[in-house]
Parts: sequence; C-alpha cells; structure tokens
Amino acid sequence: MSPTVALIAPGAMGAAIGRRLTDHGLDVWTCLEGCSAASLERARAADLKNVPLASLMQADLLLSVVPPAEAAALAERLAPFITQTETPPVYCDLNAVSTATLARIERIVSDSGSAFVDGGIIGPPPSETKTPRIYAAGENAPALAKLSSYGLDVRILDGGIGSASALKMCFAGINKGMTALTTIMLLAAGRSGAGEALRGELAHSLPEVIERIDHGIPDMLPKAWRWHPEMREIADFLDAADPQGNDVAGRRAFEGFAALYEHLGDVSTNDALIRQLETLIDATAGASRK
Amino acid sequence: MSPTVALIAPGAMGAAIGRRLTDHGLDVWTCLEGCSAASLERARAADLKNVPLASLMQADLLLSVVPPAEAAALAERLAPFITQTETPPVYCDLNAVSTATLARIERIVSDSGSAFVDGGIIGPPPSETKTPRIYAAGENAPALAKLSSYGLDVRILDGGIGSASALKMCFAGINKGMTALTTIMLLAAGRSGAGEALRGELAHSLPEVIERIDHGIPDMLPKAWRWHPEMREIADFLDAADPQGNDVAGRRAFEGFAALYEHLGDVSTNDALIRQLETLIDATAGASRK
Repeated sequence: MSPTVALIAPGAMGAAIGRRLTDHGLDVWTCLEGCSAASLERARAADLKNVPLASLMQADLLLSVVPPAEAAALAERLAPFITQTETPPVYCDLNAVSTATLARIERIVSDSGSAFVDGGIIGPPPSETKTPRIYAAGENAPALAKLSSYGLDVRILDGGIGSASALKMCFAGINKGMTALTTIMLLAAGRSGAGEALRGELAHSLPEVIERIDHGIPDMLPKAWRWHPEMREIADFLDAADPQGNDVAGRRAFEGFAALYEHLGDVSTNDALIRQLETLIDATAGASRK
Repeated sequence: MSPTVALIAPGAMGAAIGRRLTDHGLDVWTCLEGCSAASLERARAADLKNVPLASLMQADLLLSVVPPAEAAALAERLAPFITQTETPPVYCDLNAVSTATLARIERIVSDSGSAFVDGGIIGPPPSETKTPRIYAAGENAPALAKLSSYGLDVRILDGGIGSASALKMCFAGINKGMTALTTIMLLAAGRSGAGEALRGELAHSLPEVIERIDHGIPDMLPKAWRWHPEMREIADFLDAADPQGNDVAGRRAFEGFAALYEHLGDVSTNDALIRQLETLIDATAGASRK
C-alpha cells in the first residue's frame, strides 16, 4: 500500500519534495497554520493537503525539512502529538544539523514513541532536471527508502544514526565552505588591485574556481542568511567529531565562514560587499547559463 | 647584456628557478654560508656559484625566495651590504608574504638604496614539464621581467607595489585553503562513519574534490609545516585588505587552516591524523598519477 506522507514545512526544498511525491500519486499532508504567503502558494502548487497539526500523526512517514535552527524546536512541538497517537508516523529528520543536534532530536522523538530516521538531503530541490540524494541512516531507514518508488532517490547508509547528518555536514562544509573561501579571497583581491589578475591565474590553473565565482557566488547571495546558521552547525559538528576535543581547526574555519554569510545575508549592511563582488564576477557567464 | 642574478636561498623553489636560469646561460650567484646539506646539493646541481654575501651586491638582480617568516629578516640582513654598494641589485621579493610584511620589506630595501620589485610565484617549481608564473609589480617590475628571456614566465601587474603579493596571498588562500577544508571534512567524515559515502557523493557532484583528496592531500602532507606560517600571513593579509578593519571572516578561517597545518606538520604528534587520512585516500589514484 502507498505510504501517506506528512511534510513540514513547504519551504523551497520541502515543497519541491512534496510536489515530486504528489506527482507520483502519494497523498502528502502538511499543516499551514502560521505559514507565509509564499509557503501557502508553494503548498498549493505542490498539491499538498492542509490538515491540522494533530492529523499529521495519521501519516505513515513524517518528513522534517526546516532550517537547521528550527529542527529541534519542531520535534519538541510535535512530541505531545506523537505521545497521544497509538501508531505515530516514522519521524524522518532530513535537516542540516550537527550530530549533537540530531542526537537531541532523536531522543525527543524516541521518548515520545516514534520510530526515527536520520536523514540528509544533498543537492538542489527536485525539479524537471534534478533529483537530490536523500541519505538515510538508522534501523528504520528502509521506511524512508520506500519513497524511492515514488520519485525520490533515497540511499541507505550503514554507519548508524548520525552518519547521514554527518555526511550532510561534511558535504555542505566542503561545498559551501569553498564558496565562502572563494568569496573571501575574491573580495580581498579586488580591494588590492589584483582582482582581474586572480581571475586570469585561476582560469589557467584552477578553472573550476572560475565556475564557482561566476555561478556559485550569485547563487549563494540570496541564500547567505540561511547558510549562516548552517555554518554554525558545521562548526559544532566538527568539535564533536574530534574525539580528542582539541581540533580547533575546523571550528575556527567555520566560525569565519559563518561570519561571512551573516554579513552577506544582512540586508541592512551588505550592499557595499555585494557591489564589490559584482565588479569581480562575470555576469555574462551567469546569464548565459540560465 | 645578460643580467647577473643573485639568488637567496637554494630551497626547492629557489634552486629550481636558479637551475632554469643557468640552463639559459645566466650567471647565478648564491651564498651558501650556513646552508643545509640539502641546499648545498641543490645549489651544486643547479650550477649556482657560491660567493660571499657582500659579493651578491655586484649582481644586477637579487631574488629573495625564502619561507615567509624569513623574508623580512633577509632584507634586514642584506640592508647594510646594500647601503655600502654604489649600484646595488634590484631587490625582488618573491615570497608569499602579506601586504603589510611586503611594505615593511620594501621600506627596509628602499631606505638602503636598492630599487624594489614586489613579486609572487604561483605554481610548482620549474621542471622539465612545468613553469610557474612569476608576477611582478611596481615601477621596477620590467627589470625582473627581463628574466622572461631566460626561461622564466614573468608577468607584470599594473596594480602597483603590493598587488603581486596580494595576488599570491589570494591564490594560495584559495588553493591551500581548499586543501585544508577538504582535509578537515574528510577527517570528520571518517570519524563519523561517513567517509566512503562522502567519497561517493563527491565523485557524483564535485569530482574535482576527489582529485584534491587523492592527489592534493598526499602532496600537501610533507609541506604542511611550511604552509602553516603561510596561512598566518594570509590571515594578516585579510585583516589589512579590509578597509573597515572589521571583516573577521577571513582571519578566523585562516587561523583555522593554520591550526590544521601546524598539527599536520608537527612530526611529534601527527601520526594518528595521517593514519586516519590514509584510510580515506585512494592511494592507487595517487600512484597511477606518477
């Protein structure tokens, strides 16, 4: 029998996942209480069914797809509903959270009586041309993997609870960290009269970095506000991943990247930085890609 | 007339540059007082002529190619000799130093009476198959550019004194920073049971990072001790490059990378880390490249 899916929340990623599932014939429920107009519109376009929060507990699977800072709060908010339900849905946390945050969420959910899946989404939201990988870990991972029959690409990891979140942290750390690093050095080169020369040298010896400058930075700018807390999760994750607890390298690096994205995401002060970046980015390259 | 070149010191990069110049018929002098056995051997192989420090002042060009932390000390050591010489060589600082360190070196050299060139070397030492770019800035840059007729690839920047060092900082920051970032995340993935999964995801979505893992990390390990102070120069450079003086992002990130390279370069404690990395790197890929 087809599983019923509860999905919180219909943000850009959540709604696109919901849309993919409804396109494949699944019933996908969400709760739109207090949602923004944009979320309401996305939920409508994705054909999600709006139900009260308590009714989400009748689904087979619950997918949590929220900003990292809201992941634990969502589990706390749902816990009383889970407790009151005889057969609550399998709770799948798909968020970019540190393994410590994930462990906290797992405890809240398990104590309430739900089965739990540690998940992590890598790649852009589902679209006509793209499908992200959804990694799943823990003994209940096969429940989430059933969605591979409905248009998603779920891959089970054998590293146990925490390994899917760790994978997401590590991949996002490399990908979004490289964009941060490139942005920092491009700004510094521009301020030092070496912007064009840097582009020339990179085109010669590290052409993939030119791609990151001309496409990755413009793609990042409208998301910087959201990447900022994700960098903090990664800093926390790196601290915890080091058994000696003394590997400050990663924490410091990601505190730096968090500071960059915080600055770029603050619409009250980021104008000057964005204007500097625009003079160093080949907008033609960005436009021709569309 | 062919210029005579004084070169300090015959390290891996310096000796290879000297060798390229002597292969093209130039007289290249160095001073081997107090040099290591390895440097003596490299100088001999490169056909460099050993002369007293004072005699280097008779050359047309002096190339400073030393570790970043020794660049200013070398200028101070040479200053009295420069002062005593009627027509001292054009002093070319080719080191990976911050613009603040470069400005200090320029002041020492100019006050002593030498013309000065701000230079930066990007790429591996000259070899049968490779030639690094040597960027040159300042009004005396054309004097260094003459060496393009003798097997080097010198490119003049129009950004003024400091722009060649800034370019070197920015390029090294991206290149060595990306290797640091990749190393940090690979270690964290390995500790979290997600090492193989990370390799699989990267092979799919960021294949250039697999290249950096399998080739860049093994290449970096024996140089980590040297990259550590370079990361500190980059942290200093980023502070100075920000006119508001409040852009902590870059400084923090490079303090993190410096901590990583310090740890990896410390032969008394780095065994465990290197063993962890070895389990995550495809040594076959490294071997097949040779």
